[in-house]
Amino acid sequence: MRIALAQLNLTVGDLEGNAALIAQAYDDAAALGADLVAFPELAVCGYPPEDLLLKRAFVARCAETLEKLAARTGSTVAVIGYPEPDASSATGGRPYNAAAVCRDGRVEVVYRKQLLPNYAVFDEERYFAKGSSLPLFDAGGVTIGPSVCEDIWSDDGPPVRAAGAGAEVIVNINASPYYRGRQSEREQMLAGRARQIGRPIAYVNLVGGQDELVFDGGSVLVDATGTVVARAAQFAPELLVVDLAGSAPTPTVPLDDDAEVYEALVLGTRDYVRKNGFEDVIIGLSGGIDSALVAAVAADALGPERVTGVLMPSRYSSEGSVRDAEALVTNLGIRSMTVPIDPAHRAFADMLGEHFTGIAEENTQARIRGTTLMALSNRHGSLVLTTGNKSEYAMGYTTLYGDMAGGYGVIKDVFKTRVYRLATWRNVRDGALAIPLAIIDKPPSAELRPGQLDTDSLPPYEELDPVLEAYVERRRSITEMEAEGFDPALVRRVVRAVDANEYKRRQAPPGVRVSPLAFGKDRRLPITNRWSG
Amino acid sequence: MRIALAQLNLTVGDLEGNAALIAQAYDDAAALGADLVAFPELAVCGYPPEDLLLKRAFVARCAETLEKLAARTGSTVAVIGYPEPDASSATGGRPYNAAAVCRDGRVEVVYRKQLLPNYAVFDEERYFAKGSSLPLFDAGGVTIGPSVCEDIWSDDGPPVRAAGAGAEVIVNINASPYYRGRQSEREQMLAGRARQIGRPIAYVNLVGGQDELVFDGGSVLVDATGTVVARAAQFAPELLVVDLAGSAPTPTVPLDDDAEVYEALVLGTRDYVRKNGFEDVIIGLSGGIDSALVAAVAADALGPERVTGVLMPSRYSSEGSVRDAEALVTNLGIRSMTVPIDPAHRAFADMLGEHFTGIAEENTQARIRGTTLMALSNRHGSLVLTTGNKSEYAMGYTTLYGDMAGGYGVIKDVFKTRVYRLATWRNVRDGALAIPLAIIDKPPSAELRPGQLDTDSLPPYEELDPVLEAYVERRRSITEMEAEGFDPALVRRVVRAVDANEYKRRQAPPGVRVSPLAFGKDRRLPITNRWSG
Repeated sequence: MRIALAQLNLTVGDLEGNAALIAQAYDDAAALGADLVAFPELAVCGYPPEDLLLKRAFVARCAETLEKLAARTGSTVAVIGYPEPDASSATGGRPYNAAAVCRDGRVEVVYRKQLLPNYAVFDEERYFAKGSSLPLFDAGGVTIGPSVCEDIWSDDGPPVRAAGAGAEVIVNINASPYYRGRQSEREQMLAGRARQIGRPIAYVNLVGGQDELVFDGGSVLVDATGTVVARAAQFAPELLVVDLAGSAPTPTVPLDDDAEVYEALVLGTRDYVRKNGFEDVIIGLSGGIDSALVAAVAADALGPERVTGVLMPSRYSSEGSVRDAEALVTNLGIRSMTVPIDPAHRAFADMLGEHFTGIAEENTQARIRGTTLMALSNRHGSLVLTTGNKSEYAMGYTTLYGDMAGGYGVIKDVFKTRVYRLATWRNVRDGALAIPLAIIDKPPSAELRPGQLDTDSLPPYEELDPVLEAYVERRRSITEMEAEGFDPALVRRVVRAVDANEYKRRQAPPGVRVSPLAFGKDRRLPITNRWSG
Repeated sequence: MRIALAQLNLTVGDLEGNAALIAQAYDDAAALGADLVAFPELAVCGYPPEDLLLKRAFVARCAETLEKLAARTGSTVAVIGYPEPDASSATGGRPYNAAAVCRDGRVEVVYRKQLLPNYAVFDEERYFAKGSSLPLFDAGGVTIGPSVCEDIWSDDGPPVRAAGAGAEVIVNINASPYYRGRQSEREQMLAGRARQIGRPIAYVNLVGGQDELVFDGGSVLVDATGTVVARAAQFAPELLVVDLAGSAPTPTVPLDDDAEVYEALVLGTRDYVRKNGFEDVIIGLSGGIDSALVAAVAADALGPERVTGVLMPSRYSSEGSVRDAEALVTNLGIRSMTVPIDPAHRAFADMLGEHFTGIAEENTQARIRGTTLMALSNRHGSLVLTTGNKSEYAMGYTTLYGDMAGGYGVIKDVFKTRVYRLATWRNVRDGALAIPLAIIDKPPSAELRPGQLDTDSLPPYEELDPVLEAYVERRRSITEMEAEGFDPALVRRVVRAVDANEYKRRQAPPGVRVSPLAFGKDRRLPITNRWSG
């Protein structure tokens, strides 16, 4: 039996565009002699459609689109994810998260997702009714058990029961978002499940960026012994075609940790820009490491000719910063312009008089830069990429409407220590110092007052980031962090700052999620809140 | 039997403060001879605690706090809402949304909420395990059936079954957020339920603001015939004490529509400011109706001496606007200062040269004002209140980091036509023209270029707002709106604008929800989205 996994880059709400990609992949798979081709979860509408699913007209159009796709199928079976409308009172009008099995011009049977994730970034109980039946079907003489995403993660879930009921191969269609190390977690789970049930599993995943989420692809076929016999690309579309019984070529090696994160940033940025109809981006270049990494990611995502770095030196900018930013522009081959901010700095000093001191003066400089970038964005239709990292967002070491102004936060889920690692990784990748060593080596500074250093306001990042990782990404309590050996004073300082700055993060632009717990839909904390810890 | 409903203003995360309020109300109710006193849903931790519930240390501390409260009870029964920890694998570690029945120093029995809302602003399936048991208890010789919020809304829910099992009175503890007309919906439902089961219902609600939500109180006792025999204040705390068998005084009359909305804005603003530790607020005063209404609400919420209006005239401000803003300041008795923005306007023109035209120039003026307000906020620790209304937010007729800059959006869920009604209502309430008629009468303008009017960019508000109400608040499709008789061209124009501006709203500050469907947790649409309609 020949099986095809259509790992496509689909777009939320683009029913026609998605249908065209699905039809093309179907035709390719059929031409390659596939008995079955599987498409991602909710392929017809993209994932996650969120409250679009509360619009009856939207769900109805998805069903029509699915019917049209079914109508053009031949003997190759297509398993296509879509929201299946159900007007019965049992579902409260909610659709099912369904996999339609299509062949010979019609929908043969529909499988309905049974395990609905309602944690982390997922809200599927808000949208879907739960399925209960376990339809099997035949493809190429083999009995197939279809399932959707979460279903496969439980050790007594639908695929386990399908195997018990006679399924010889499990097909599992997914929209599984990326975070660091996720591919390895998935493959480990799939290997265990395959061994548990003694059946091969064909796992197809979505690929592409959608607001905060990046779907990383990495579709796999796992045999009954738990061995990965074929693996599709990570972070790129692919039609993976495998013979179930044949001897497969050695699968590609998965990306390492830094490569994975970097590719996620590139794909997330590219898709946010393109799917939202932008042609190019602008980035404020300070001469520091954060904006340098963002510029490198943007150049890789869009091509350097679509990236403009804007240098906005002030009276407090060091000569080195300007020089380093200029070297970066040259090395990356991006466009640039320079807008010194002193005229506006002086104007606000005049306007605000005695009120213009301390943090007010510092933040105003960041806001002059934000306003400058936004004016250029408004004039030329370019998207502003913001450059704040996760350590800064966590601690509130960032200016609302200043450096937080922009449409997409490329590295907002990347801790500062990893920003350094990724910059070095990018240089090593190309065997060139595109990001100048001076940028990597100098002590970080916001340069909003003479001689300012990040360490004036923050613990050193090597000490800070592990505490943030424990508190934010692993949800550890103060007591638990102390038990892990972190300095109690440092823990309290960090927890206080993270908790106090929820209001800032609420007004941040979206950005690529690369961690198991990002600021965004993953982490829903009240602003008004007297609990800390 | 004497029953007390403790309609308290509690604060999320403030376990000690909430416990003190609960203990005080308990003592007062006991002193007044109550047999039972009921507190709101999750009274111990405030509502909604959101992802605080995922912190084990938080839930454990809530349970300890509840135990302490139980320990100080005497013969008066206390029904207290709190998250009840459950470490068993059946709940996946999730707590129950529980009502503890406390008497004589201990927790006698615990009722666990069975119907968990997971729609609109609610995510209770994310946090709670579902209860199943139906414990009854005795108070003052009467058998009581406890229940929590959503449980009472179903016509075969736990209170219906409790009545069948012998409950003579239903106690229902709530954290039910306000929207226009919600009190009347609740009372209608309660009247129907009481008649259905032939039992009185004691309904206690939370009061106070929490980020986007305002809990409006309005606790009621409904007798077995469905008549409201006692009603607590709306938008203010109250300990309502009623004799179940006695002849009650005529209950207070509920507020009318405009009064309700205005009081919600006042309470939401006051609690956001105070619970987040601010003393005073600043507001940009343009001389227009939106900032005038916001200033009036703020003066009512905090006292005029805690409100500063900042006039920031530009080269395009009319003389009338400045005069009207000054009259408003005098009438409300608030503080004011004037910061002309022309120096910064000229500076940005110099800095940006040929790029400084059209929408770039217009938005820059709004951002200069935002930056000015934020500098004053940073210098003096005042919270900036934003003045955008729902019609503007819907259509994107607002500037990111400009007039959207600030901590709280007082009228972000109020359509422009209602802004006018509320301004007039406020004047009539005091029998004085605190909001000058000139402000109410002049055609709305952003004054970002000579002679600009809102109607240059938007349909007239009287035509626009009904379409927005249909599309946003009633989730009507294009087809449905056309069937309701709206102009098809207008419908398409509005839908396009609303859909295209999701990215702006994502970076808006929170604000008071007064409608059945506000921009915020209520409405979760993707930014990257090619579906419109």
